[in-house]
Amino acid sequence: MTKKEERDAKLPPKSNFSEWYHELLRSAEIVDVRYPVKGMSVWYPFGFALRSHVYQIIKELLDVDHYETQFPLLIPETEFMKEAEHIKGFEDEVYWVTHGGRDPLDIKLALRPTSETAIYPMLKLWIRSHADLPLRIYQIVNTFRYETKHTRPLIRLREITSFKEAHTAHATWEEAAMQVEIAIQRYIEFYRRLAIPCLVSKRPSWDKFPGADYSIALDVIMPDGRTLQVGTAHLLGTNFAKTYEITYEDEHGEQRYVNQTCYGISERCIAALIAVHGDDKGLVLPWRVAPVQVVIVPIIFGEREPIIEVCRSIASTLAGRNIRVRLDDGDERPGAKFYKWEMRGVPVRIEIGPRDIKNGVVTIVRRDGVRKTLPMDERLVDAILIEAEELQTVLYNRAKEFMDSKIKLVSSLDEARSQVQSGVARVPWCGSVECGHALEDQIGANLLGEPRGDELPPMRCLVCGRESTGSTYMARQY
Amino acid sequence: MTKKEERDAKLPPKSNFSEWYHELLRSAEIVDVRYPVKGMSVWYPFGFALRSHVYQIIKELLDVDHYETQFPLLIPETEFMKEAEHIKGFEDEVYWVTHGGRDPLDIKLALRPTSETAIYPMLKLWIRSHADLPLRIYQIVNTFRYETKHTRPLIRLREITSFKEAHTAHATWEEAAMQVEIAIQRYIEFYRRLAIPCLVSKRPSWDKFPGADYSIALDVIMPDGRTLQVGTAHLLGTNFAKTYEITYEDEHGEQRYVNQTCYGISERCIAALIAVHGDDKGLVLPWRVAPVQVVIVPIIFGEREPIIEVCRSIASTLAGRNIRVRLDDGDERPGAKFYKWEMRGVPVRIEIGPRDIKNGVVTIVRRDGVRKTLPMDERLVDAILIEAEELQTVLYNRAKEFMDSKIKLVSSLDEARSQVQSGVARVPWCGSVECGHALEDQIGANLLGEPRGDELPPMRCLVCGRESTGSTYMARQY
Repeated sequence: MTKKEERDAKLPPKSNFSEWYHELLRSAEIVDVRYPVKGMSVWYPFGFALRSHVYQIIKELLDVDHYETQFPLLIPETEFMKEAEHIKGFEDEVYWVTHGGRDPLDIKLALRPTSETAIYPMLKLWIRSHADLPLRIYQIVNTFRYETKHTRPLIRLREITSFKEAHTAHATWEEAAMQVEIAIQRYIEFYRRLAIPCLVSKRPSWDKFPGADYSIALDVIMPDGRTLQVGTAHLLGTNFAKTYEITYEDEHGEQRYVNQTCYGISERCIAALIAVHGDDKGLVLPWRVAPVQVVIVPIIFGEREPIIEVCRSIASTLAGRNIRVRLDDGDERPGAKFYKWEMRGVPVRIEIGPRDIKNGVVTIVRRDGVRKTLPMDERLVDAILIEAEELQTVLYNRAKEFMDSKIKLVSSLDEARSQVQSGVARVPWCGSVECGHALEDQIGANLLGEPRGDELPPMRCLVCGRESTGSTYMARQY
Repeated sequence: MTKKEERDAKLPPKSNFSEWYHELLRSAEIVDVRYPVKGMSVWYPFGFALRSHVYQIIKELLDVDHYETQFPLLIPETEFMKEAEHIKGFEDEVYWVTHGGRDPLDIKLALRPTSETAIYPMLKLWIRSHADLPLRIYQIVNTFRYETKHTRPLIRLREITSFKEAHTAHATWEEAAMQVEIAIQRYIEFYRRLAIPCLVSKRPSWDKFPGADYSIALDVIMPDGRTLQVGTAHLLGTNFAKTYEITYEDEHGEQRYVNQTCYGISERCIAALIAVHGDDKGLVLPWRVAPVQVVIVPIIFGEREPIIEVCRSIASTLAGRNIRVRLDDGDERPGAKFYKWEMRGVPVRIEIGPRDIKNGVVTIVRRDGVRKTLPMDERLVDAILIEAEELQTVLYNRAKEFMDSKIKLVSSLDEARSQVQSGVARVPWCGSVECGHALEDQIGANLLGEPRGDELPPMRCLVCGRESTGSTYMARQY
């Protein structure tokens, strides 16, 4: 933004979440929503750098046993329409290219809302024998949804600019199911590195991915208590394989359908990162993904040049250790600089004034407010890296505490209705579709699905009264 | 590709360039052209890795003083149609999105063929004062052209999957012109790192970018003597600034139009890389961009495990120095492995057999055929890195020699007509538009433009006979 706009930026308190979020995207220069198409926005350089660091983590986690590829954006209508369940799930929100130049196209082209129908015709060609399995690929691409609902930057978009979608093929259903587990574990680890705890649940049958046997999802509880789905993994079984005729020859020479999975994460991970950690002063970024990890602010009293010289020397030492450091030696007052870099979530600020130099120390202020004096010698870099680790722990624990405080086991519909106003209700549920729909209707919230790995003692389903150990998370969803 | 297809792959000799190129894209697993839309193809994992390493170089060269950003793919017709020259240049080849779901859109959306009309309305918002200048941004995105000509993988595409486009804004025309020079120098350096020499010329007025004051282009001479335009930089002056009202307040408080440039490189750089260096055995890749830099092939005589153990140890040493190394300990014969990795352009192959181990050496074979014995001790890594450097020099010199051999100063139309059958003609030209068109008509080739920095003694224009120091490259273009 221009210098003037920067001065004018006023961040509302985070308790006013929606306004805080929108203003922060602008003040911290994440995305510019003024692009002249609704639901499509521009990544500012700072936001783009943040996004790159975040996606680098996903890539690292996947590159262990996945290959990165890229498939075309445009999908011929003929391929797109093949899988009946799938198309039902997407046909109302697909953008169609109908003209090239001034001529109508013979076959309309869909802008991918997700790439199953672009990728699977190729997997049919790529997979022949059991030796080609398992096959694990992913791509990070832009996808499109003609959203008719209210759009929201990074959360509900018409152009999802950075959809990481993985697609795998396996010999058996069991191996595919195991891959879904692995995917979920990787995603949990991904969010852990962003210091974000997640809820994991198996989506109810009526909310699974169109064409899947089942779907597992990760949700983050946002500051206002609503949940944001930030990752999903789907067991596709042989549903798409049958449609696209993806078969392999097994050890005995027989042709079999492959079993598939797919799993995805979008820039909602950036939305979660901003929403979970940010505070009244702006972004709070984990060290690993901060575009600027350390900012050095000289505190000038008396002669300027000797202080700047020390700052430069420290900046160069940090840069030599691959720390993303910025020396802010501009003309603004230190207070204005603090404000600006706090807004951008810089994890560690170093202040250096004449007294610090005299004492051979630097003053550091972590973005969570912790203030320390560190030695200005060869121990400095390691000391800063320890602060970065500590900040990470603080952020995760704070986020976990918040999440836990927002989940409540309820024992009546009234209690559930009240709980979902500001958080997530864990609702005793027999597991039947009828009772599930009834819960959604009567509580006025969405059923996220069964929590995993944490069973309750038998309780009565809030609808039918049958006793069951089952339960579901319910929440108002973004 | 499947194991069977791999065995069946037969690479035609490079002298049969077109078939060689297409088969190599498949055999070396660069792109799969079987995607069911003409002119759009799939990046195989190996091709994608190559592309990533190549684009990493562009990013490094630009990140010094450019910011990476990302703008939306879809451009409203209203914005797209604003710049008259520009739209004339693109209107026949733009894909249009006309429907969202089943509903027609109020305003049609263009798939960007290039992003001036997406970016410049935002620059109007981003730039206010001289303090915001110069502004230099870039993005790497997919762009679309509804090509009616014959498409060709990586060369003439309907989806350009990796268009790196930079856009800059400056206070004065002179500064913008200087930026065009800087861009061209960066591009020359980029190609130098790929060991590719380029021709640089100023395109004739009738072949400049639609909406530009002038355009400078880089061309590579392909094996068949035709040229491939692999990079362009355009001086836009205030043409777009006037259309999109991009102004800044100068030091004296006056509003002025910014002066702009833009410059781009697409995956044609990968096509050039493949075509310039490849040979009858497949890809030949410079070290810096090779997805696999070193392949280790054990030569088993007698006991297998001790040899594999040594190979593993060397692989781990190389990996520890950030070398992309692959140990191929599969069951195939060494010859089959050599064939496979030569096809993929691996710069250095290490062969390790019982005798090597006994003698404390390894045998290396560079992709240009040079064979050496290197010590199997702590000197090995540095020795390999020196080989990588030498290979780079060999590749560049070989390519430069080829390029020089393909350019000829001609002194008659007949000679020019003959020269462009297998290379580039340098044609004396007075510089007039009429004579330029006449040259194109009469020689049956395109006028690339004035070579830069290498003037000729006065010669007679081949059309009008006037004496002039001017000349132009002419070639059949891809």
